[in-house]
Amino acid sequence: MKEKVVLAFSGGLDTSFCAKYLSEEKGYDVYTAVANTGGFSEEELKVIEDKAYKLGAVKHVALNVEQEYYEKSIKYMVFGNVLRNGTYPISVSSERIFQALAIIEYAKEIGADYVAHGSTGAGNDQVRFDLTFEVMAPHIKILTPTRDMVLSREYEINYLKQHGFEADFKKMEYSINKGLWGTSVGGKETLHSDKTLPEEAYPSQVTETKEETLTIDFEKGEICGVNGISYSNKVDAIRAVEAVGCKFAIGRDMHVGDTIIGIKGRVGFEAAGPMLIINAHKMLEKHTLTKWQQYWKDQLGNWYGMFLHEAQYLEPVMRDMEAFLQSSQANVTGRVIINLRPYSYTLVGVQSDFDLMKGDFGVYGEEQKAWTADDVKGFTKILGNQMKIFYSVQNKNKQ
Amino acid sequence: MKEKVVLAFSGGLDTSFCAKYLSEEKGYDVYTAVANTGGFSEEELKVIEDKAYKLGAVKHVALNVEQEYYEKSIKYMVFGNVLRNGTYPISVSSERIFQALAIIEYAKEIGADYVAHGSTGAGNDQVRFDLTFEVMAPHIKILTPTRDMVLSREYEINYLKQHGFEADFKKMEYSINKGLWGTSVGGKETLHSDKTLPEEAYPSQVTETKEETLTIDFEKGEICGVNGISYSNKVDAIRAVEAVGCKFAIGRDMHVGDTIIGIKGRVGFEAAGPMLIINAHKMLEKHTLTKWQQYWKDQLGNWYGMFLHEAQYLEPVMRDMEAFLQSSQANVTGRVIINLRPYSYTLVGVQSDFDLMKGDFGVYGEEQKAWTADDVKGFTKILGNQMKIFYSVQNKNKQ
Amino acid sequence: MKEKVVLAFSGGLDTSFCAKYLSEEKGYDVYTAVANTGGFSEEELKVIEDKAYKLGAVKHVALNVEQEYYEKSIKYMVFGNVLRNGTYPISVSSERIFQALAIIEYAKEIGADYVAHGSTGAGNDQVRFDLTFEVMAPHIKILTPTRDMVLSREYEINYLKQHGFEADFKKMEYSINKGLWGTSVGGKETLHSDKTLPEEAYPSQVTETKEETLTIDFEKGEICGVNGISYSNKVDAIRAVEAVGCKFAIGRDMHVGDTIIGIKGRVGFEAAGPMLIINAHKMLEKHTLTKWQQYWKDQLGNWYGMFLHEAQYLEPVMRDMEAFLQSSQANVTGRVIINLRPYSYTLVGVQSDFDLMKGDFGVYGEEQKAWTADDVKGFTKILGNQMKIFYSVQNKNKQ
Amino acid sequence: MKEKVVLAFSGGLDTSFCAKYLSEEKGYDVYTAVANTGGFSEEELKVIEDKAYKLGAVKHVALNVEQEYYEKSIKYMVFGNVLRNGTYPISVSSERIFQALAIIEYAKEIGADYVAHGSTGAGNDQVRFDLTFEVMAPHIKILTPTRDMVLSREYEINYLKQHGFEADFKKMEYSINKGLWGTSVGGKETLHSDKTLPEEAYPSQVTETKEETLTIDFEKGEICGVNGISYSNKVDAIRAVEAVGCKFAIGRDMHVGDTIIGIKGRVGFEAAGPMLIINAHKMLEKHTLTKWQQYWKDQLGNWYGMFLHEAQYLEPVMRDMEAFLQSSQANVTGRVIINLRPYSYTLVGVQSDFDLMKGDFGVYGEEQKAWTADDVKGFTKILGNQMKIFYSVQNKNKQ
Repeated sequence: MKEKVVLAFSGGLDTSFCAKYLSEEKGYDVYTAVANTGGFSEEELKVIEDKAYKLGAVKHVALNVEQEYYEKSIKYMVFGNVLRNGTYPISVSSERIFQALAIIEYAKEIGADYVAHGSTGAGNDQVRFDLTFEVMAPHIKILTPTRDMVLSREYEINYLKQHGFEADFKKMEYSINKGLWGTSVGGKETLHSDKTLPEEAYPSQVTETKEETLTIDFEKGEICGVNGISYSNKVDAIRAVEAVGCKFAIGRDMHVGDTIIGIKGRVGFEAAGPMLIINAHKMLEKHTLTKWQQYWKDQLGNWYGMFLHEAQYLEPVMRDMEAFLQSSQANVTGRVIINLRPYSYTLVGVQSDFDLMKGDFGVYGEEQKAWTADDVKGFTKILGNQMKIFYSVQNKNKQ
Repeated sequence: MKEKVVLAFSGGLDTSFCAKYLSEEKGYDVYTAVANTGGFSEEELKVIEDKAYKLGAVKHVALNVEQEYYEKSIKYMVFGNVLRNGTYPISVSSERIFQALAIIEYAKEIGADYVAHGSTGAGNDQVRFDLTFEVMAPHIKILTPTRDMVLSREYEINYLKQHGFEADFKKMEYSINKGLWGTSVGGKETLHSDKTLPEEAYPSQVTETKEETLTIDFEKGEICGVNGISYSNKVDAIRAVEAVGCKFAIGRDMHVGDTIIGIKGRVGFEAAGPMLIINAHKMLEKHTLTKWQQYWKDQLGNWYGMFLHEAQYLEPVMRDMEAFLQSSQANVTGRVIINLRPYSYTLVGVQSDFDLMKGDFGVYGEEQKAWTADDVKGFTKILGNQMKIFYSVQNKNKQ
Repeated sequence: MKEKVVLAFSGGLDTSFCAKYLSEEKGYDVYTAVANTGGFSEEELKVIEDKAYKLGAVKHVALNVEQEYYEKSIKYMVFGNVLRNGTYPISVSSERIFQALAIIEYAKEIGADYVAHGSTGAGNDQVRFDLTFEVMAPHIKILTPTRDMVLSREYEINYLKQHGFEADFKKMEYSINKGLWGTSVGGKETLHSDKTLPEEAYPSQVTETKEETLTIDFEKGEICGVNGISYSNKVDAIRAVEAVGCKFAIGRDMHVGDTIIGIKGRVGFEAAGPMLIINAHKMLEKHTLTKWQQYWKDQLGNWYGMFLHEAQYLEPVMRDMEAFLQSSQANVTGRVIINLRPYSYTLVGVQSDFDLMKGDFGVYGEEQKAWTADDVKGFTKILGNQMKIFYSVQNKNKQ
Repeated sequence: MKEKVVLAFSGGLDTSFCAKYLSEEKGYDVYTAVANTGGFSEEELKVIEDKAYKLGAVKHVALNVEQEYYEKSIKYMVFGNVLRNGTYPISVSSERIFQALAIIEYAKEIGADYVAHGSTGAGNDQVRFDLTFEVMAPHIKILTPTRDMVLSREYEINYLKQHGFEADFKKMEYSINKGLWGTSVGGKETLHSDKTLPEEAYPSQVTETKEETLTIDFEKGEICGVNGISYSNKVDAIRAVEAVGCKFAIGRDMHVGDTIIGIKGRVGFEAAGPMLIINAHKMLEKHTLTKWQQYWKDQLGNWYGMFLHEAQYLEPVMRDMEAFLQSSQANVTGRVIINLRPYSYTLVGVQSDFDLMKGDFGVYGEEQKAWTADDVKGFTKILGNQMKIFYSVQNKNKQ
């Protein structure tokens, strides 16, 4: 009986090579699996399936983990306002983890001997796949032929041709990775430090020049409405925001970051939905959370994002952080109003029953209702006590 | 002999009332002083001086602390990429501190018995003035007639009229506070949560619609060039960036923040210079600092901004943080290229001899030059050790 | 009808004065209440009650909040290994909060017009009482006659005598505050910086000189057994540990801390139970939690302790932190063995099914079972990548 | 001409094997070097030198880096009160780094082709040596024969015998690592979780049972006097404190920590000097630093210790942290008084011109001199504003 290998399969050149190589040269039964976190359409999944069988897969499955990805990752990234390095919504990075989890779960289910992926040795994804696989199934060995053999595109294309598989593997100018939580765009300019991607490299283009108003509703920190329409399916709500933002080419930026393997990496991205949702959510929090809730959410959200990005999703501290983030959202309920224009937008304001900016106590800089001038004088006097003692001691020591 | 009071004087209604009230009703010798951190022009200073003498000042001085403000505050706000709540460059807040310091220094110099300011009881400025005065000169008593008497605008205007001083104190629709590090705009919409300021409320308007490229040069974290021109005077460099950004109405936003006195406050601002300089600086740091330098700079910069905003500039921990920030800038040298368009801009890239994104070690996602596939496998194996142990123990306990 | 005041009553000089003063001079119906967080015995409570009625109380109640204090405070202080300034288990400070909460709850129940306490103007307790009262019942006014009138002991004693109440209010050399979570000892030496309390100032004395072994069992972070005996009542378990530790005079130290009002304060304490439980718990966590769980628990536990100490228990961020801490305890189950001797003890070791120090993966410094020399070489190579790039760039720039 | 290898040589079994193996089997010119950070006496160094030459070393050197180790590491560990996991003064760990730095510097000086060390594959030291060597001299290859071949003690002893070298390599019951900043003790009990080292395993034993007073003087955070005697040589001062503490068997504990390679490790240690100096220093800081200086020093000191322990000393963020720590010590000047008794000690108090616990402002809990009851009421009112608003909003939403 042949040994079974589950291959994380996307239909790209590297995984196509792996499929053929592992079945032909290694003699394994290759089970291909594509884990869909929301980036693939039905049509795309069909194309992938066809390819898989043509390349010799014994069986192909599409694992739909869109809802799980929302529940276990996007939700917390929004709670934590996660923008890596202040700008990147950890688009592809977080999807990889949930793809890896789905793949290894499937491998365990079917009793696979091996699990394989097509990542190269120069990026983050290899660590995300390897680490997740090893932790969840230490007994299943990992195969990575493309990484191990350091093959050129030409070699892979030729090999596939020689084995009767011909496809359009023309190298695209930019490598584009589409996902539910953003699309990354790498190549040419991103390989160096001093240029940015040209307009046309981005998947979306400005199609609307008239200003437009968008409203996003949140309930306990989770998106639940867009432009007045309620959504029980959060993934649909995200797509609705994305559709509006894309018309204005919103959410583009360049992420310059520290990779897991220590080198700096640069990648462009477009993420209208994530940027609008996160920034609207953050604005609502400014109104509904206390100063120290915001302070500590920033601390934990920042680390949560770093660990998610760096393949540490399974670290138990992540569960503890999720408990904190969940607790913090009790009052993050209300509507955020946004004005969109080409390339940028304005957070107009919020409407919330939990808004702490209430007139009962005073209006900043205008009117105090809950205290007197003397109260503030007393406050300031006590607040300054330690500094006053410090400077008094300093002055004495100077004499 | 009359007692001396030094009055922090801006020529606005509140401090005009104070000048007259303190000399007429209280019989003090009133020494007016305006501390210029860069927000006043020569003409504006002349107008203020004339007003002061008309209102009965014994003596008026303009204290120029522009350079000191840069050296002791702006420099570190740039090093720390300080944006309060992720958006506000602490414009007016930080200037107040250095105005208060200059005023109290002057009061000590001339042996004043009192120091006075015109802040109301509903804002942050009262704490900034009181605290700074008390710490630096515990023996000089503080007078705040407008805060203590809770007077209306009408009352103050009438009082001044009755005492022979008539001026155009018509209430502006928006209260505008212009400074070197940004201009704040408050009123109407900012008093509630759900609307934003109208276009015309902002001092600058879009005057240029064609995209424009801007370059900013940094040396050890400090701005030293704009569009290829060197600046030894950093204040002039800031103004040069400001002039370019203003044409595109860049740097507008709404700050929703927690005031020192515990209520939420909302204020619009326009700060083209600060936003462009800080974000360019941060981009340069992404290329020249290590991951952990950035992580800790974020921690300290965030707190530094909070304390500066909350009148705690004199806390000794601020000096320790400045030492850290200064040390971190050793390699933050290079040029940042920016593309400007109406309302928004793109950070194109950086050129720096200290750029850590160098091809010698590998290109992210493309090519590794300094390690092998096996190295990363070993890395991932060890990196995952603790998680593997954790899940192994979990599984054993489940059985 | 007379107005009602609820007085937080301990039977000490200050609150005795308040009871008499508020009923006699102010003509209120005085309802005295003592909130017992575990520091009072039945006998002590009886004495307090008798005093209350003699001093003119309309009604006296003893509010038993021992279990609530454990559930809402001690539990989390153990989870967070809370030792303020690295040494003080926040004994009295945390009890005050739960006493204040019980008092104000009672005041609301009986529809009181006022709530009163006997704290002076020089300490932390005034802030704990005032703040908790104000937040939980903004409509109930606060009375603090002893603070407001700044009375001397002699004055209070005389006043009580003149009103027919004579008691032994002889000033003790040390002011002792006994609670469930530790006893504080202040006076004489603690008022200055350079001396420590004498042996006899502490409530417990060494009564056992032979070494003794103590075991403490934890389940999900909560104490559940002492010396092999199970406890469902956690308060009893704490007392059992305390009883053992006291024989060895364990848990004494001096806390030098920053008070809420900005001055430094110094106080001795004895807390055998808390110190043994917290340090045993921490040791168990070193074995059962991952490195990053410990790191973040330290961060949150430290802040949680600070806020608890500084009257901020009601801040919503505290609930979020509790959620984190609770989540982190899932595996903190096992036994800790301790050797006690006079004045000190040794944490011998732990026994736990969740111990991550397992032989399956390797023994530190002795044997690796789950990796090879090459794995560590690869690990180190990748781990050092960023530093290698940094120094390579440094060297190039030096040339 | 033979290739040159510099071998980090301690005279133990592993490095003795390496010396012989590298010269005999590999044919290198072996240059042995022992880097003395303060743990070796002159006699011990002589014994090591003799061994080296007997084992075939071409040349042997003893590199004295005691003062450098103090200046670049101990000083900052004291500034940062560094106790890993709250207990371990990072004794051996930090010395390894400075030994590695000295060795690689020597290797560069003499133009070595290789550098070798004797660490096994199961511990932290291999990472400390490899990483430091690779970063400081990427062109010098690293040799680790004992790690690579995974040899048994018997094999190594036999090999040495066969090559004419016989020494007393009898395995000690405990592996003891003596250094200037503490001695680690591993073996038997430390390999499991539930036992502690027996009394006799520790190098020092109680030789004094009468209480003794010790004073330590600090100037700007650095030790400068012991028992009234001034020391300009800080290393001598450390040894003086150590000598006193050892008589009482102070500073023993068990460190349970997370190793760099992810497993838990347990090791006993004795460090009378470090424990007394660090805890005295920390006490002095409680009196001379503000609350927030202490808070941030804890943050940075904790991380600094972690990175030092984990071979990250060369990370540039460490230099930035050192700048912070240095700045924070400006006022940490004064005397700390300590009472010693067998196994434990009491921090009696401090004497310092920079003590912030001064009577001019008030005495905690006793007397306020710089504020009134009304000041504290105002303070508390404003301090509670945000919580009051929060609960008011909560209550409204409940209705």
